[in-house]
Amino acid sequence: MIKRLCIIGVGLIGGSLARALREAGYVGEIVGSSRRQAHLQEAVELGVIDRFDTDPAKAVEGADLVFVSVPLGAMGEVFKAIAGALTPGAVVTDGGSAKASVVRDIRQAVGDVPDWFVPGHPIAGTELSGVSASFAELYRGRRVILTPLEQTRPEAIARVRAMWEAAGAQVNEMSVEHHDEVLAATSHLPHMLAFALVESLARLAEQREIFEYAAGGFADFTRIASSDPVMWRDICVANREALLTMLDRFNTDLDALRTAVDQGDEVTLLRIFSEAKAARDAF
Amino acid sequence: MIKRLCIIGVGLIGGSLARALREAGYVGEIVGSSRRQAHLQEAVELGVIDRFDTDPAKAVEGADLVFVSVPLGAMGEVFKAIAGALTPGAVVTDGGSAKASVVRDIRQAVGDVPDWFVPGHPIAGTELSGVSASFAELYRGRRVILTPLEQTRPEAIARVRAMWEAAGAQVNEMSVEHHDEVLAATSHLPHMLAFALVESLARLAEQREIFEYAAGGFADFTRIASSDPVMWRDICVANREALLTMLDRFNTDLDALRTAVDQGDEVTLLRIFSEAKAARDAF
Repeated sequence: MIKRLCIIGVGLIGGSLARALREAGYVGEIVGSSRRQAHLQEAVELGVIDRFDTDPAKAVEGADLVFVSVPLGAMGEVFKAIAGALTPGAVVTDGGSAKASVVRDIRQAVGDVPDWFVPGHPIAGTELSGVSASFAELYRGRRVILTPLEQTRPEAIARVRAMWEAAGAQVNEMSVEHHDEVLAATSHLPHMLAFALVESLARLAEQREIFEYAAGGFADFTRIASSDPVMWRDICVANREALLTMLDRFNTDLDALRTAVDQGDEVTLLRIFSEAKAARDAF
Repeated sequence: MIKRLCIIGVGLIGGSLARALREAGYVGEIVGSSRRQAHLQEAVELGVIDRFDTDPAKAVEGADLVFVSVPLGAMGEVFKAIAGALTPGAVVTDGGSAKASVVRDIRQAVGDVPDWFVPGHPIAGTELSGVSASFAELYRGRRVILTPLEQTRPEAIARVRAMWEAAGAQVNEMSVEHHDEVLAATSHLPHMLAFALVESLARLAEQREIFEYAAGGFADFTRIASSDPVMWRDICVANREALLTMLDRFNTDLDALRTAVDQGDEVTLLRIFSEAKAARDAF
Protein backbone atom coordinates (compact mmCIF):
# COMPACT_ATOMS: atom_id res chain seq x y z
CA MET A 1 0.00 0.00 0.00
CA ILE A 2 1.30 3.44 -0.95
CA LYS A 3 0.28 6.33 1.29
CA ARG A 4 1.23 9.14 -1.00
CA LEU A 5 2.29 8.52 -4.60
CA CYS A 6 3.91 11.30 -6.58
CA ILE A 7 3.80 11.02 -10.37
CA ILE A 8 6.05 13.32 -12.32
CA GLY A 9 4.84 13.45 -15.93
CA VAL A 10 1.13 12.63 -15.93
CA GLY A 11 0.56 11.27 -19.47
CA LEU A 12 -0.51 7.90 -20.82
CA ILE A 13 2.02 5.96 -18.71
CA GLY A 14 1.82 7.89 -15.46
CA GLY A 15 -1.93 8.45 -15.74
CA SER A 16 -2.65 4.78 -16.38
CA LEU A 17 -0.58 3.75 -13.34
CA ALA A 18 -2.52 6.22 -11.19
CA ARG A 19 -5.86 4.89 -12.44
CA ALA A 20 -4.82 1.25 -11.95
CA LEU A 21 -3.56 1.76 -8.38
CA ARG A 22 -6.63 3.74 -7.42
CA GLU A 23 -8.89 1.05 -8.82
CA ALA A 24 -6.91 -1.56 -6.86
CA GLY A 25 -7.28 0.49 -3.68
CA TYR A 26 -3.48 0.41 -3.40
CA VAL A 27 -2.86 4.13 -2.96
CA GLY A 28 -3.94 6.90 -0.57
CA GLU A 29 -3.22 10.23 -2.18
CA ILE A 30 -1.83 10.89 -5.68
CA VAL A 31 0.11 14.10 -6.33
CA GLY A 32 1.02 15.04 -9.90
CA SER A 33 3.72 17.24 -11.32
CA SER A 34 4.51 18.36 -14.85
CA ARG A 35 5.72 21.41 -16.72
CA ARG A 36 2.27 22.25 -18.01
CA GLN A 37 -0.37 23.32 -15.56
CA ALA A 38 -3.18 22.72 -18.08
CA HIS A 39 -2.32 19.02 -18.32
CA LEU A 40 -2.30 18.70 -14.53
CA GLN A 41 -5.62 20.49 -14.28
CA GLU A 42 -7.05 18.05 -16.82
CA ALA A 43 -5.65 15.12 -14.78
CA VAL A 44 -7.39 16.42 -11.66
CA GLU A 45 -10.66 16.86 -13.56
CA LEU A 46 -10.41 13.31 -14.88
CA GLY A 47 -9.91 12.07 -11.31
CA VAL A 48 -6.48 10.67 -12.17
CA ILE A 49 -4.61 12.71 -9.53
CA ASP A 50 -5.83 14.40 -6.36
CA ARG A 51 -3.73 17.56 -6.55
CA PHE A 52 -0.60 18.89 -8.24
CA ASP A 53 2.38 21.16 -8.03
CA THR A 54 4.29 22.29 -11.12
CA ASP A 55 7.45 22.36 -8.97
CA PRO A 56 8.61 18.73 -8.71
CA ALA A 57 10.57 19.44 -5.50
CA LYS A 58 7.34 20.49 -3.82
CA ALA A 59 5.30 17.70 -5.40
CA VAL A 60 7.50 14.94 -3.91
CA GLU A 61 7.25 16.28 -0.34
CA GLY A 62 5.90 13.58 1.96
CA ALA A 63 5.55 11.00 -0.83
CA ASP A 64 6.64 7.46 0.02
CA LEU A 65 6.82 6.49 -3.66
CA VAL A 66 7.75 8.64 -6.66
CA PHE A 67 7.19 7.56 -10.27
CA VAL A 68 9.04 9.60 -12.91
CA SER A 69 7.45 9.21 -16.34
CA VAL A 70 8.79 12.14 -18.31
CA PRO A 71 10.50 11.80 -21.74
CA LEU A 72 14.04 10.43 -21.46
CA GLY A 73 15.49 13.84 -22.34
CA ALA A 74 13.94 15.41 -19.24
CA MET A 75 14.93 12.74 -16.67
CA GLY A 76 18.21 14.35 -15.52
CA GLU A 77 16.53 17.65 -14.76
CA VAL A 78 13.80 15.98 -12.69
CA PHE A 79 16.31 13.95 -10.66
CA LYS A 80 18.30 17.12 -9.94
CA ALA A 81 15.15 18.90 -8.78
CA ILE A 82 13.80 16.19 -6.47
CA ALA A 83 16.91 14.50 -4.98
CA GLY A 84 17.21 16.94 -2.08
CA ALA A 85 13.47 17.22 -1.46
CA LEU A 86 12.56 13.55 -0.91
CA THR A 87 11.19 12.37 2.42
CA PRO A 88 13.65 9.98 4.13
CA GLY A 89 12.79 6.39 3.15
CA ALA A 90 11.08 7.43 -0.08
CA VAL A 91 11.58 5.15 -3.08
CA VAL A 92 11.92 6.52 -6.63
CA THR A 93 11.37 4.58 -9.85
CA ASP A 94 10.89 5.56 -13.49
CA GLY A 95 9.23 4.41 -16.70
CA GLY A 96 11.91 5.23 -19.26
CA SER A 97 12.19 3.05 -22.39
CA ALA A 98 16.00 2.90 -22.12
CA LYS A 99 17.78 2.25 -18.87
CA ALA A 100 21.52 2.99 -19.28
CA SER A 101 20.76 6.64 -20.04
CA VAL A 102 18.49 6.99 -17.00
CA VAL A 103 21.13 5.48 -14.73
CA ARG A 104 23.71 7.83 -16.24
CA ASP A 105 21.37 10.81 -15.77
CA ILE A 106 20.69 10.13 -12.09
CA ARG A 107 24.39 9.51 -11.46
CA GLN A 108 25.20 12.89 -12.99
CA ALA A 109 22.37 14.61 -11.10
CA VAL A 110 23.01 13.12 -7.66
CA GLY A 111 26.69 12.16 -7.78
CA ASP A 112 26.08 8.43 -7.59
CA VAL A 113 23.12 6.14 -8.23
CA PRO A 114 21.26 6.30 -4.91
CA ASP A 115 20.15 3.10 -3.16
CA TRP A 116 16.55 4.34 -3.19
CA PHE A 117 16.31 4.45 -6.99
CA VAL A 118 14.90 1.45 -8.89
CA PRO A 119 15.19 1.82 -12.69
CA GLY A 120 12.08 0.38 -14.35
CA HIS A 121 10.23 0.06 -17.61
CA PRO A 122 6.61 -0.99 -18.14
CA ILE A 123 6.38 -2.73 -21.54
CA ALA A 124 3.03 -1.26 -22.41
CA GLY A 125 1.63 1.67 -24.27
CA THR A 126 -0.46 2.62 -27.24
CA GLU A 127 0.32 4.96 -30.11
CA LEU A 128 -1.70 7.60 -28.25
CA SER A 129 -0.29 9.89 -25.59
CA GLY A 130 -1.48 12.27 -22.90
CA VAL A 131 -3.51 11.77 -19.75
CA SER A 132 -6.78 11.70 -21.72
CA ALA A 133 -5.59 8.44 -23.34
CA SER A 134 -4.78 6.79 -19.99
CA PHE A 135 -6.79 3.84 -18.69
CA ALA A 136 -6.63 1.56 -15.66
CA GLU A 137 -6.18 -1.68 -17.66
CA LEU A 138 -3.05 -0.65 -19.58
CA TYR A 139 -0.70 -2.78 -17.47
CA ARG A 140 -2.96 -5.77 -16.88
CA GLY A 141 -1.06 -8.92 -17.86
CA ARG A 142 1.82 -6.87 -19.31
CA ARG A 143 5.49 -7.09 -18.37
CA VAL A 144 7.41 -4.59 -16.30
CA ILE A 145 11.19 -4.84 -16.31
CA LEU A 146 13.18 -3.61 -13.32
CA THR A 147 16.94 -3.17 -13.71
CA PRO A 148 18.25 -2.64 -10.16
CA LEU A 149 21.97 -2.05 -9.58
CA GLU A 150 24.18 -3.67 -6.95
CA GLN A 151 23.58 -0.89 -4.46
CA THR A 152 19.78 -0.79 -4.89
CA ARG A 153 18.05 -1.61 -1.58
CA PRO A 154 16.12 -4.92 -1.79
CA GLU A 155 13.31 -3.29 0.14
CA ALA A 156 13.07 -0.56 -2.51
CA ILE A 157 12.88 -3.18 -5.28
CA ALA A 158 10.17 -5.05 -3.36
CA ARG A 159 8.05 -1.93 -3.01
CA VAL A 160 8.26 -1.05 -6.70
CA ARG A 161 7.53 -4.65 -7.64
CA ALA A 162 4.47 -4.70 -5.37
CA MET A 163 3.22 -1.46 -6.93
CA TRP A 164 3.35 -2.86 -10.47
CA GLU A 165 1.80 -6.13 -9.39
CA ALA A 166 -1.04 -4.16 -7.81
CA ALA A 167 -1.50 -2.53 -11.24
CA GLY A 168 -1.87 -6.00 -12.76
CA ALA A 169 1.59 -6.37 -14.33
CA GLN A 170 4.10 -9.21 -14.25
CA VAL A 171 7.50 -8.03 -13.00
CA ASN A 172 10.89 -9.31 -14.19
CA GLU A 173 14.42 -8.21 -13.33
CA MET A 174 17.41 -8.04 -15.66
CA SER A 175 20.58 -6.01 -16.11
CA VAL A 176 20.50 -2.50 -17.53
CA GLU A 177 22.53 -3.57 -20.59
CA HIS A 178 20.37 -6.58 -21.34
CA HIS A 179 17.21 -4.51 -21.08
CA ASP A 180 18.54 -2.01 -23.59
CA GLU A 181 19.48 -4.74 -26.07
CA VAL A 182 16.14 -6.53 -25.79
CA LEU A 183 14.17 -3.30 -26.21
CA ALA A 184 16.31 -2.16 -29.15
CA ALA A 185 15.34 -5.41 -30.87
CA THR A 186 11.64 -5.67 -30.05
CA SER A 187 10.59 -2.04 -29.84
CA HIS A 188 13.10 0.56 -30.96
CA LEU A 189 14.08 -1.10 -34.26
CA PRO A 190 10.45 -1.82 -35.31
CA HIS A 191 9.56 1.81 -34.61
CA MET A 192 12.46 3.00 -36.77
CA LEU A 193 11.24 0.79 -39.63
CA ALA A 194 7.67 2.02 -39.34
CA PHE A 195 8.71 5.68 -39.19
CA ALA A 196 11.11 5.27 -42.13
CA LEU A 197 8.52 3.42 -44.22
CA VAL A 198 5.76 5.98 -43.71
CA GLU A 199 8.22 8.82 -44.32
CA SER A 200 9.38 7.09 -47.50
CA LEU A 201 5.83 6.65 -48.82
CA ALA A 202 4.72 10.12 -47.75
CA ARG A 203 7.35 11.64 -50.02
CA LEU A 204 6.19 9.74 -53.11
CA ALA A 205 4.47 12.07 -55.55
CA GLU A 206 1.29 10.02 -55.55
CA GLN A 207 1.12 9.74 -51.77
CA ARG A 208 -2.60 10.32 -51.41
CA GLU A 209 -3.44 7.62 -53.86
CA ILE A 210 -0.81 5.32 -52.36
CA PHE A 211 -2.41 5.48 -48.93
CA GLU A 212 -5.88 4.95 -50.44
CA TYR A 213 -4.89 1.55 -51.73
CA ALA A 214 -3.18 0.44 -48.54
CA ALA A 215 -4.86 -2.61 -47.05
CA GLY A 216 -5.42 -3.76 -43.49
CA GLY A 217 -1.92 -5.15 -43.05
CA PHE A 218 -0.48 -1.73 -43.81
CA ALA A 219 -2.61 -0.09 -41.14
CA ASP A 220 -1.38 -2.55 -38.52
CA PHE A 221 2.19 -2.36 -39.72
CA THR A 222 2.39 1.42 -39.55
CA ARG A 223 0.27 2.10 -36.46
CA ILE A 224 3.38 2.57 -34.32
CA ALA A 225 4.51 5.40 -36.63
CA SER A 226 1.79 7.49 -34.94
CA SER A 227 3.75 7.41 -31.68
CA ASP A 228 4.99 10.57 -29.98
CA PRO A 229 7.93 12.04 -32.00
CA VAL A 230 9.59 13.70 -28.99
CA MET A 231 9.56 10.45 -27.02
CA TRP A 232 11.13 8.62 -29.94
CA ARG A 233 13.76 11.27 -30.57
CA ASP A 234 14.80 10.87 -26.93
CA ILE A 235 14.83 7.06 -27.16
CA CYS A 236 17.13 7.22 -30.20
CA VAL A 237 19.56 9.44 -28.34
CA ALA A 238 19.31 7.46 -25.10
CA ASN A 239 19.69 3.96 -26.58
CA ARG A 240 21.97 4.90 -29.46
CA GLU A 241 24.52 2.06 -29.25
CA ALA A 242 22.07 -0.84 -28.89
CA LEU A 243 19.82 0.63 -31.57
CA LEU A 244 22.70 1.06 -34.04
CA THR A 245 23.73 -2.55 -33.46
CA MET A 246 20.21 -3.78 -34.21
CA LEU A 247 19.84 -1.45 -37.23
CA ASP A 248 23.06 -2.83 -38.72
CA ARG A 249 22.00 -6.38 -38.03
CA PHE A 250 18.65 -5.75 -39.70
CA ASN A 251 20.32 -4.06 -42.66
CA THR A 252 22.45 -7.13 -43.26
CA ASP A 253 19.34 -9.32 -43.27
CA LEU A 254 17.34 -6.94 -45.46
CA ASP A 255 20.25 -6.80 -47.87
CA ALA A 256 20.31 -10.60 -48.11
CA LEU A 257 16.59 -10.52 -48.88
CA ARG A 258 17.13 -7.80 -51.49
CA THR A 259 19.80 -9.90 -53.18
CA ALA A 260 17.44 -12.89 -53.28
CA VAL A 261 14.71 -10.71 -54.88
CA ASP A 262 17.22 -9.28 -57.35
CA GLN A 263 18.46 -12.71 -58.38
CA GLY A 264 15.03 -14.33 -58.40
CA ASP A 265 16.43 -16.82 -55.87
CA GLU A 266 13.21 -18.68 -55.06
CA VAL A 267 14.85 -21.15 -52.66
CA THR A 268 16.28 -18.42 -50.43
CA LEU A 269 13.07 -16.36 -50.56
CA LEU A 270 10.97 -19.34 -49.49
CA ARG A 271 13.42 -20.21 -46.71
CA ILE A 272 13.44 -16.66 -45.27
CA PHE A 273 9.64 -16.30 -45.43
CA SER A 274 9.05 -19.77 -43.96
CA GLU A 275 11.45 -19.19 -41.05
CA ALA A 276 9.91 -15.80 -40.34
CA LYS A 277 6.37 -17.18 -40.45
CA ALA A 278 7.30 -20.04 -38.10
CA ALA A 279 8.89 -17.62 -35.62
CA ARG A 280 5.92 -15.21 -35.80
CA ASP A 281 3.35 -17.98 -35.45
CA ALA A 282 5.23 -19.31 -32.39
CA PHE A 283 5.19 -15.82 -30.89
CA MET B 1 -25.98 -12.12 -61.97
CA ILE B 2 -23.58 -14.99 -62.67
CA LYS B 3 -25.15 -18.29 -63.74
CA ARG B 4 -22.14 -20.49 -63.21
CA LEU B 5 -19.00 -19.20 -61.52
CA CYS B 6 -15.81 -21.23 -61.68
CA ILE B 7 -13.18 -20.54 -59.03
CA ILE B 8 -9.74 -21.97 -59.63
CA GLY B 9 -7.84 -21.96 -56.35
CA VAL B 10 -10.39 -22.09 -53.52
CA GLY B 11 -8.50 -20.52 -50.60
CA LEU B 12 -9.04 -17.39 -48.53
CA ILE B 13 -9.47 -15.14 -51.59
CA GLY B 14 -11.51 -17.41 -53.83
CA GLY B 15 -13.52 -18.86 -50.97
CA SER B 16 -14.43 -15.45 -49.58
CA LEU B 17 -15.62 -14.30 -53.03
CA ALA B 18 -17.79 -17.40 -53.32
CA ARG B 19 -19.32 -16.82 -49.89
CA ALA B 20 -19.97 -13.13 -50.58
CA LEU B 21 -21.63 -13.72 -53.96
CA ARG B 22 -23.77 -16.50 -52.56
CA GLU B 23 -24.85 -14.32 -49.66
CA ALA B 24 -25.71 -11.55 -52.15
CA GLY B 25 -27.75 -13.98 -54.23
CA TYR B 26 -25.59 -13.00 -57.19
CA VAL B 27 -24.56 -16.46 -58.34
CA GLY B 28 -26.29 -19.67 -59.45
CA GLU B 29 -23.81 -22.50 -59.28
CA ILE B 30 -20.21 -22.37 -58.05
CA VAL B 31 -17.70 -24.89 -59.36
CA GLY B 32 -14.27 -25.14 -57.73
CA SER B 33 -10.96 -26.42 -59.01
CA SER B 34 -7.58 -26.89 -57.34
CA ARG B 35 -4.69 -29.32 -57.30
CA ARG B 36 -5.71 -30.81 -54.01
CA GLN B 37 -8.92 -32.80 -53.84
CA ALA B 38 -8.99 -32.64 -50.01
CA HIS B 39 -9.20 -28.83 -50.10
CA LEU B 40 -12.03 -28.97 -52.61
CA GLN B 41 -13.88 -31.54 -50.53
CA GLU B 42 -13.53 -29.24 -47.52
CA ALA B 43 -14.88 -26.32 -49.59
CA VAL B 44 -17.95 -28.38 -50.54
CA GLU B 45 -18.51 -29.39 -46.91
CA LEU B 46 -18.27 -25.75 -45.83
CA GLY B 47 -20.88 -24.85 -48.46
CA VAL B 48 -18.45 -22.55 -50.24
CA ILE B 49 -18.67 -24.37 -53.60
CA ASP B 50 -21.34 -26.67 -55.02
CA ARG B 51 -19.06 -29.15 -56.77
CA PHE B 52 -15.53 -29.45 -58.07
CA ASP B 53 -13.23 -30.93 -60.65
CA THR B 54 -9.47 -31.17 -60.11
CA ASP B 55 -9.04 -30.71 -63.88
CA PRO B 56 -9.40 -26.95 -64.49
CA ALA B 57 -10.34 -27.53 -68.16
CA LYS B 58 -13.36 -29.54 -67.03
CA ALA B 59 -14.19 -27.18 -64.18
CA VAL B 60 -14.59 -24.17 -66.49
CA GLU B 61 -17.01 -25.94 -68.84
CA GLY B 62 -20.23 -23.95 -69.09
CA ALA B 63 -19.08 -21.23 -66.69
CA ASP B 64 -19.90 -17.64 -67.69
CA LEU B 65 -17.34 -16.22 -65.25
CA VAL B 66 -14.02 -17.71 -64.16
CA PHE B 67 -11.98 -16.38 -61.22
CA VAL B 68 -8.38 -17.56 -61.03
CA SER B 69 -6.95 -17.18 -57.51
CA VAL B 70 -3.92 -19.43 -57.49
CA PRO B 71 -0.41 -18.28 -56.42
CA LEU B 72 1.26 -16.11 -59.06
CA GLY B 73 3.70 -18.90 -59.91
CA ALA B 74 0.83 -21.18 -61.01
CA MET B 75 -1.10 -18.67 -63.16
CA GLY B 76 0.51 -19.54 -66.52
CA GLU B 77 -0.25 -23.22 -66.15
CA VAL B 78 -3.90 -22.54 -65.35
CA PHE B 79 -4.33 -20.20 -68.34
CA LYS B 80 -2.80 -22.84 -70.60
CA ALA B 81 -5.18 -25.47 -69.27
CA ILE B 82 -8.41 -23.47 -69.53
CA ALA B 83 -7.99 -21.26 -72.64
CA GLY B 84 -9.30 -23.87 -75.06
CA ALA B 85 -12.04 -25.15 -72.76
CA LEU B 86 -13.95 -21.92 -72.07
CA THR B 87 -17.56 -21.52 -73.13
CA PRO B 88 -17.86 -18.82 -75.85
CA GLY B 89 -18.58 -15.47 -74.18
CA ALA B 90 -17.04 -16.50 -70.86
CA VAL B 91 -15.09 -13.82 -68.99
CA VAL B 92 -11.94 -14.64 -66.99
CA THR B 93 -10.41 -12.54 -64.24
CA ASP B 94 -7.81 -13.16 -61.56
CA GLY B 95 -6.80 -12.07 -58.06
CA GLY B 96 -3.02 -11.89 -58.41
CA SER B 97 -1.11 -9.36 -56.28
CA ALA B 98 1.08 -8.31 -59.23
CA LYS B 99 -0.35 -7.62 -62.66
CA ALA B 100 2.49 -7.35 -65.21
CA SER B 101 3.49 -10.95 -64.53
CA VAL B 102 -0.07 -12.22 -64.92
CA VAL B 103 -0.46 -10.37 -68.22
CA ARG B 104 2.86 -11.82 -69.38
CA ASP B 105 1.80 -15.32 -68.30
CA ILE B 106 -1.50 -15.28 -70.18
CA ARG B 107 0.23 -13.84 -73.25
CA GLN B 108 2.72 -16.71 -73.18
CA ALA B 109 0.00 -19.29 -72.55
CA VAL B 110 -2.52 -18.10 -75.14
CA GLY B 111 -0.34 -16.25 -77.68
CA ASP B 112 -1.84 -12.82 -76.95
CA VAL B 113 -3.80 -11.29 -74.10
CA PRO B 114 -7.37 -12.30 -74.99
CA ASP B 115 -10.16 -9.72 -74.99
CA TRP B 116 -12.10 -11.81 -72.47
CA PHE B 117 -9.44 -11.52 -69.76
CA VAL B 118 -9.70 -8.76 -67.12
CA PRO B 119 -6.63 -8.59 -64.84
CA GLY B 120 -7.74 -7.78 -61.31
CA HIS B 121 -6.61 -7.56 -57.70
CA PRO B 122 -8.77 -7.37 -54.58
CA ILE B 123 -6.87 -5.35 -51.95
CA ALA B 124 -7.97 -7.49 -49.06
CA GLY B 125 -6.74 -10.44 -47.11
CA THR B 126 -5.64 -11.55 -43.69
CA GLU B 127 -2.45 -13.27 -42.60
CA LEU B 128 -4.42 -16.53 -42.66
CA SER B 129 -4.91 -18.68 -45.73
CA GLY B 130 -7.03 -21.58 -46.90
CA VAL B 131 -10.75 -21.98 -47.47
CA SER B 132 -11.37 -22.50 -43.73
CA ALA B 133 -10.27 -18.89 -43.18
CA SER B 134 -12.63 -17.49 -45.84
CA PHE B 135 -15.59 -15.30 -44.90
CA ALA B 136 -18.28 -13.42 -46.79
CA GLU B 137 -17.37 -9.97 -45.43
CA LEU B 138 -13.72 -9.95 -46.56
CA TYR B 139 -14.32 -7.56 -49.47
CA ARG B 140 -16.95 -5.33 -47.88
CA GLY B 141 -15.82 -1.70 -48.27
CA ARG B 142 -12.43 -2.78 -49.63
CA ARG B 143 -10.86 -1.77 -52.95
CA VAL B 144 -10.53 -3.94 -56.01
CA ILE B 145 -8.19 -2.74 -58.75
CA LEU B 146 -8.83 -3.78 -62.36
CA THR B 147 -6.06 -3.23 -64.91
CA PRO B 148 -7.71 -3.84 -68.30
CA LEU B 149 -5.63 -3.56 -71.47
CA GLU B 150 -6.58 -1.76 -74.69
CA GLN B 151 -8.06 -4.89 -76.19
CA THR B 152 -10.12 -5.87 -73.15
CA ARG B 153 -13.84 -5.90 -74.01
CA PRO B 154 -15.74 -3.19 -72.11
CA GLU B 155 -18.51 -5.67 -71.49
CA ALA B 156 -16.05 -8.06 -69.85
CA ILE B 157 -14.79 -5.25 -67.57
CA ALA B 158 -18.38 -4.36 -66.67
CA ARG B 159 -19.18 -7.93 -65.67
CA VAL B 160 -16.12 -8.27 -63.46
CA ARG B 161 -16.82 -4.87 -61.90
CA ALA B 162 -20.42 -5.87 -61.17
CA MET B 163 -19.24 -9.09 -59.55
CA TRP B 164 -16.92 -7.30 -57.13
CA GLU B 165 -19.53 -4.69 -56.35
CA ALA B 166 -21.97 -7.46 -55.53
CA ALA B 167 -19.34 -8.76 -53.08
CA GLY B 168 -19.32 -5.32 -51.42
CA ALA B 169 -16.10 -3.91 -52.87
CA GLN B 170 -15.30 -0.56 -54.47
CA VAL B 171 -13.76 -1.00 -57.91
CA ASN B 172 -11.08 1.22 -59.48
CA GLU B 173 -9.21 0.94 -62.76
CA MET B 174 -5.56 1.80 -63.42
CA SER B 175 -2.72 0.70 -65.65
CA VAL B 176 -0.83 -2.53 -65.03
CA GLU B 177 2.41 -0.63 -64.36
CA HIS B 178 0.84 1.82 -61.93
CA HIS B 179 -0.82 -1.00 -60.01
CA ASP B 180 2.49 -2.77 -59.58
CA GLU B 181 4.22 0.37 -58.30
CA VAL B 182 1.44 1.23 -55.84
CA LEU B 183 1.32 -2.31 -54.47
CA ALA B 184 5.12 -2.53 -54.19
CA ALA B 185 4.95 0.55 -51.96
CA THR B 186 1.95 -0.23 -49.78
CA SER B 187 2.05 -3.99 -49.54
CA HIS B 188 5.11 -5.73 -50.93
CA LEU B 189 7.72 -3.51 -49.25
CA PRO B 190 6.04 -3.62 -45.80
CA HIS B 191 5.86 -7.41 -46.02
CA MET B 192 9.58 -7.57 -46.84
CA LEU B 193 10.36 -5.43 -43.77
CA ALA B 194 8.18 -7.55 -41.49
CA PHE B 195 9.67 -10.82 -42.77
CA ALA B 196 13.24 -9.48 -42.51
CA LEU B 197 12.66 -8.12 -39.00
CA VAL B 198 11.18 -11.33 -37.62
CA GLU B 199 13.91 -13.37 -39.34
CA SER B 200 16.52 -11.04 -37.84
CA LEU B 201 15.15 -11.39 -34.32
CA ALA B 202 14.54 -15.12 -34.62
CA ARG B 203 18.25 -15.64 -35.22
CA LEU B 204 19.30 -13.79 -32.07
CA ALA B 205 20.61 -16.20 -29.44
CA GLU B 206 18.07 -15.04 -26.86
CA GLN B 207 15.11 -15.24 -29.24
CA ARG B 208 12.65 -16.80 -26.82
CA GLU B 209 13.23 -14.14 -24.24
CA ILE B 210 13.19 -11.42 -26.92
CA PHE B 211 9.71 -12.36 -28.06
CA GLU B 212 8.49 -12.57 -24.45
CA TYR B 213 9.21 -8.90 -23.93
CA ALA B 214 7.67 -7.76 -27.20
CA ALA B 215 4.74 -5.42 -26.61
CA GLY B 216 1.48 -4.86 -28.45
CA GLY B 217 3.03 -2.69 -31.14
CA PHE B 218 5.36 -5.50 -32.09
CA ALA B 219 2.48 -7.93 -32.51
CA ASP B 220 0.72 -5.54 -34.88
CA PHE B 221 3.91 -4.70 -36.72
CA THR B 222 4.86 -8.29 -37.41
CA ARG B 223 1.43 -9.83 -38.00
CA ILE B 224 1.96 -9.75 -41.78
CA ALA B 225 5.08 -11.91 -41.37
CA SER B 226 2.64 -14.79 -40.75
CA SER B 227 1.48 -14.60 -44.37
CA ASP B 228 1.83 -17.52 -46.76
CA PRO B 229 5.55 -17.95 -47.72
CA VAL B 230 4.79 -19.47 -51.15
CA MET B 231 2.53 -16.58 -52.09
CA TRP B 232 5.19 -14.08 -51.07
CA ARG B 233 7.98 -15.91 -52.86
CA ASP B 234 5.86 -15.68 -56.01
CA ILE B 235 5.08 -11.99 -55.48
CA CYS B 236 8.81 -11.21 -55.13
CA VAL B 237 9.53 -12.96 -58.41
CA ALA B 238 6.50 -11.47 -60.18
CA ASN B 239 6.93 -7.86 -59.07
CA ARG B 240 10.74 -7.85 -58.92
CA GLU B 241 11.46 -4.50 -60.60
CA ALA B 242 8.91 -2.36 -58.73
CA LEU B 243 9.82 -4.03 -55.45
CA LEU B 244 13.56 -3.44 -55.94
CA THR B 245 12.88 0.23 -56.70
CA MET B 246 10.89 0.60 -53.47
CA LEU B 247 13.44 -1.37 -51.43
CA ASP B 248 16.23 0.94 -52.62
CA ARG B 249 14.15 4.00 -51.91
CA PHE B 250 13.42 2.74 -48.41
CA ASN B 251 17.08 1.88 -47.83
CA THR B 252 18.08 5.44 -48.64
CA ASP B 253 15.56 6.75 -46.10
CA LEU B 254 16.50 4.21 -43.44
CA ASP B 255 20.15 5.09 -43.98
CA ALA B 256 19.39 8.78 -43.42
CA LEU B 257 17.63 7.85 -40.19
CA ARG B 258 20.56 5.66 -39.13
CA THR B 259 22.96 8.55 -39.71
CA ALA B 260 20.78 10.82 -37.57
CA VAL B 261 20.79 8.23 -34.76
CA ASP B 262 24.55 7.76 -35.09
CA GLN B 263 25.22 11.49 -34.92
CA GLY B 264 22.66 12.18 -32.21
CA ASP B 265 21.06 14.64 -34.65
CA GLU B 266 17.94 15.51 -32.63
CA VAL B 267 16.60 18.03 -35.16
CA THR B 268 16.56 15.52 -38.02
CA LEU B 269 15.15 12.74 -35.82
CA LEU B 270 12.29 14.94 -34.65
CA ARG B 271 11.57 16.09 -38.21
CA ILE B 272 11.43 12.52 -39.60
CA PHE B 273 9.25 11.23 -36.75
CA SER B 274 6.90 14.25 -36.91
CA GLU B 275 6.43 13.98 -40.68
CA ALA B 276 5.80 10.25 -40.43
CA LYS B 277 3.32 10.69 -37.59
CA ALA B 278 1.44 13.40 -39.53
CA ALA B 279 1.24 11.18 -42.64
CA ARG B 280 0.13 8.14 -40.63
CA ASP B 281 -2.47 10.11 -38.67
CA ALA B 282 -3.87 11.51 -41.93
CA PHE B 283 -4.10 7.96 -43.31
